[in-house]
Amino acid sequence: MDHHCHLLQRGSGGPDPNDFRACFTESRDPRVLSDHVPNTPLYRLLLRRLAPIFGCPPEEAAILRARRMLEPGRYARELMELSGTGLMLVDTGFAGGDTLTLEEQQSIVPIPQREVVRVEPLAEDLVALYRRPEDWLDAVRTGLNEAVRRGAVAVKTIVAYRASLRLRWPDHDLVRAEYAALRQSARASSRGGRPRLTGDPLCHALVFVAAEECARLGVPLQFHCGMGDTDTDLAEGSPLGLRALLVHERFDRLRVVLLHCYPFHREAAYLCSVYGGVFMDLSLAVWMAATDGARAMREVVGLCPWTKLLYATDASRLPEVFVIAAELHREALAEAFGELVARQLLTMQEALDAGRLVLSGNARQLYRV
Amino acid sequence: MDHHCHLLQRGSGGPDPNDFRACFTESRDPRVLSDHVPNTPLYRLLLRRLAPIFGCPPEEAAILRARRMLEPGRYARELMELSGTGLMLVDTGFAGGDTLTLEEQQSIVPIPQREVVRVEPLAEDLVALYRRPEDWLDAVRTGLNEAVRRGAVAVKTIVAYRASLRLRWPDHDLVRAEYAALRQSARASSRGGRPRLTGDPLCHALVFVAAEECARLGVPLQFHCGMGDTDTDLAEGSPLGLRALLVHERFDRLRVVLLHCYPFHREAAYLCSVYGGVFMDLSLAVWMAATDGARAMREVVGLCPWTKLLYATDASRLPEVFVIAAELHREALAEAFGELVARQLLTMQEALDAGRLVLSGNARQLYRV
Amino acid sequence: MDHHCHLLQRGSGGPDPNDFRACFTESRDPRVLSDHVPNTPLYRLLLRRLAPIFGCPPEEAAILRARRMLEPGRYARELMELSGTGLMLVDTGFAGGDTLTLEEQQSIVPIPQREVVRVEPLAEDLVALYRRPEDWLDAVRTGLNEAVRRGAVAVKTIVAYRASLRLRWPDHDLVRAEYAALRQSARASSRGGRPRLTGDPLCHALVFVAAEECARLGVPLQFHCGMGDTDTDLAEGSPLGLRALLVHERFDRLRVVLLHCYPFHREAAYLCSVYGGVFMDLSLAVWMAATDGARAMREVVGLCPWTKLLYATDASRLPEVFVIAAELHREALAEAFGELVARQLLTMQEALDAGRLVLSGNARQLYRV
Repeated sequence: MDHHCHLLQRGSGGPDPNDFRACFTESRDPRVLSDHVPNTPLYRLLLRRLAPIFGCPPEEAAILRARRMLEPGRYARELMELSGTGLMLVDTGFAGGDTLTLEEQQSIVPIPQREVVRVEPLAEDLVALYRRPEDWLDAVRTGLNEAVRRGAVAVKTIVAYRASLRLRWPDHDLVRAEYAALRQSARASSRGGRPRLTGDPLCHALVFVAAEECARLGVPLQFHCGMGDTDTDLAEGSPLGLRALLVHERFDRLRVVLLHCYPFHREAAYLCSVYGGVFMDLSLAVWMAATDGARAMREVVGLCPWTKLLYATDASRLPEVFVIAAELHREALAEAFGELVARQLLTMQEALDAGRLVLSGNARQLYRV
Repeated sequence: MDHHCHLLQRGSGGPDPNDFRACFTESRDPRVLSDHVPNTPLYRLLLRRLAPIFGCPPEEAAILRARRMLEPGRYARELMELSGTGLMLVDTGFAGGDTLTLEEQQSIVPIPQREVVRVEPLAEDLVALYRRPEDWLDAVRTGLNEAVRRGAVAVKTIVAYRASLRLRWPDHDLVRAEYAALRQSARASSRGGRPRLTGDPLCHALVFVAAEECARLGVPLQFHCGMGDTDTDLAEGSPLGLRALLVHERFDRLRVVLLHCYPFHREAAYLCSVYGGVFMDLSLAVWMAATDGARAMREVVGLCPWTKLLYATDASRLPEVFVIAAELHREALAEAFGELVARQLLTMQEALDAGRLVLSGNARQLYRV
Repeated sequence: MDHHCHLLQRGSGGPDPNDFRACFTESRDPRVLSDHVPNTPLYRLLLRRLAPIFGCPPEEAAILRARRMLEPGRYARELMELSGTGLMLVDTGFAGGDTLTLEEQQSIVPIPQREVVRVEPLAEDLVALYRRPEDWLDAVRTGLNEAVRRGAVAVKTIVAYRASLRLRWPDHDLVRAEYAALRQSARASSRGGRPRLTGDPLCHALVFVAAEECARLGVPLQFHCGMGDTDTDLAEGSPLGLRALLVHERFDRLRVVLLHCYPFHREAAYLCSVYGGVFMDLSLAVWMAATDGARAMREVVGLCPWTKLLYATDASRLPEVFVIAAELHREALAEAFGELVARQLLTMQEALDAGRLVLSGNARQLYRV
């Protein structure tokens, strides 16, 4: 069960190698795409693993040519099945005109899928409707309730892309002032009323409200932590910043999921070891950091109880990403638990049981699916 | 020589598995105890290693039953001897009605023991007696002097549990205001005058005073750093925060010991490599993080001179903790120095000599015992 | 090609072991030199590797004796050739009466050498000449232009030794006030007008100006990051602090080189993976942290494209440092890329090509030499 992934793009993509490479990096810098992505262990491995799938040599041009020859529906269906995924929780908040909708994706990909609702776009859509921030935040609560009622199994926040992840209880005067400014700039802009939420006061207020509502609804709150694209300030992106939320009795029942975490994955493992409601994955790191993603997995299984560790790909856009992420994640798990067996901390059977929990059991219990 | 451990609890403990599990985690969350501690490498290894000691199957229920059948005195004596410890430095500051006193422990456990005095409880006991913070801090100095005169070989601070570990020279007005507030709240509470010291101004003022006194008395000052229970804000818990103390000439003669350090152990190794007066251990991390504790040991022996590295268990409450911590710590050391031999950085003899220093020689010289 | 090293000292050095040891540590603490440097993996390895070079037993006294018997010019020439370096980029900013000048070094050492100009001493020399900080910073620009015109191929900043590496756009009033104070203290002191630049406002203003000028001149800007001597506050020394510079469009064309990075090398690898203009090395860490330097190399090659990774020794003072740093760096690279081959992420040929880029090709392209 892949507890965190995204929507596929429409079709199998064009002939531009940079469009393809862009799916295997968090960079949006054209220099990185043209000069550096091909010179990463991930990309070389990718070419080598995709070649037999498409029946072509392990070269970028050959693979780009071969994959475009497949009918898009069949291409998506067949590759997604290769990922071996039993259930997908899909963060639908990163959608756009070039991505499928969740309904479309469900009709194409023969894997059961459930929605994870991203709170920031939901909140941004409501700014134009409410003059006072209190009313806006109440509407967010209502929106989250409705999302859960229509089937969402978790809430996701990307506060780390918009503000510091060092959560602080917001000052009400600041929230009021920044909310007014946000509405003003939205009206002045041409984006049709969908403003971009940034800065600690509003983003943190939103997180605390979402956390309260998640605790009440019994759904987990997923946090992007650690590495990501250049919108995130990694110096402010350690999961240790969530302390204000983790220690407050108001959130005693909240279950928090730390996504990615790298290079703060030891810190995340520590949080999992002491806070009952904290869970983690290494989703993005496992494949993007290649060998060091696998090393990070070996590092976290020391301190993080394996009942707190989750499997996810964080894949998006291309089925190839789902396939490579799934393979590398399973190999990293096999290696990490294999080390525990080799060092006689676990028996082979205990390791297999633990691996099954990470791959599926933990998420099924956490998300109640 | 175990240069940092705690007091044993009275008796061998009851039949509640959660009470037993609580000794192998820093968590106090009942969910962690019931659902997650058993699913850690440490706990599985523990069961497997305790089984032959108690002559029972490697199952929790069997071990809990078997250990309660031993007469408490004999149980403590025999298991503590299994730890192979030659001398224990005991932090007596974590005492309570259910723990032995140092005198009781010395009469039961046939291992020589010396006291490490914890400065925060000593200081808290003095708050009621002094109206002015200057007089209170002077009384702390006197208290530390007396503790050393009656046999304490080091001072320990848990400032990381009460304030930020990023030490700042305190502002006198703030110290005065917070001290007055502390006294007021102590009088108003029912704790009988023992207030809880928290916050940077008072805690940092206390640390600087303790550091001065330790330098004068020639005893090391131990700092809890890095991982611990949820009272500590790990985001503020890196040993790098001690810089104000490390660079000031007033503390030129002070010797500082960084305890635990994980996941900031590479930072700690760096401090050991440049500051003559800084020493470190990985005590808690080595056993609690299991394989990653051993990895942390391999990481620190690269940069930290082995004459700066100390052996400790940070064990408390149960003799089983002392036994497993001692075993895992020695195995981690053997592995780390073994790697240096395998890579031909050291000869076997050099590695054995280095290991002996870590296990005993360094601490004997540092604490002058 | 060694893209970052320093000047040699005059002669082969005296008989004092501490003078020799001081070249293999960042510490200046006499206790570290006398008691701890000899007890590091690096130092033991060093003795063992130097012994056959000098034809003596692997003991400090014997090596100190043997090396002094060589004629200083021949000693420098022969050992430097052992490092196998094809081209050296020399940071001349750490010069003194006991070091060679670049011209002298070029005449003694038969390896082509180019200058890296350090911006802080250049700026300090100009303080006495300008009353207004704007004029001073303009003179710095002129100075950098002249340095590049006379052959410098890069600019280096040691802002991490003088201020926080968390760059902030400077406040003009603060810059003005601190500049006036700096000039006053310089006039009052006996240093003959060469003041010591410290503090965020002036040091950050200088960095932003140097960065603009480097972008304009097309030369890279090297940043000391991570570990170093005790002048640096490592808590403020993560390369993640450079964000203000990395995200601003004014520096789109700037190429930044992160030096050393340890223990923030995973953070550095992340920056390389997302920002087109960021490059890194592990120079100092690779040899000073011994086995953990090699481990850091294995960690970074996961996420950092190998077209972003550079080879450097950061060696200074003694030819022995160049030799041991070169050997350990190459071994670390061989091991890291060897792991990628063993895990079938790269073919042997790909690994060899990648290694050649790290050792030379990347730097030749980056510095246009």
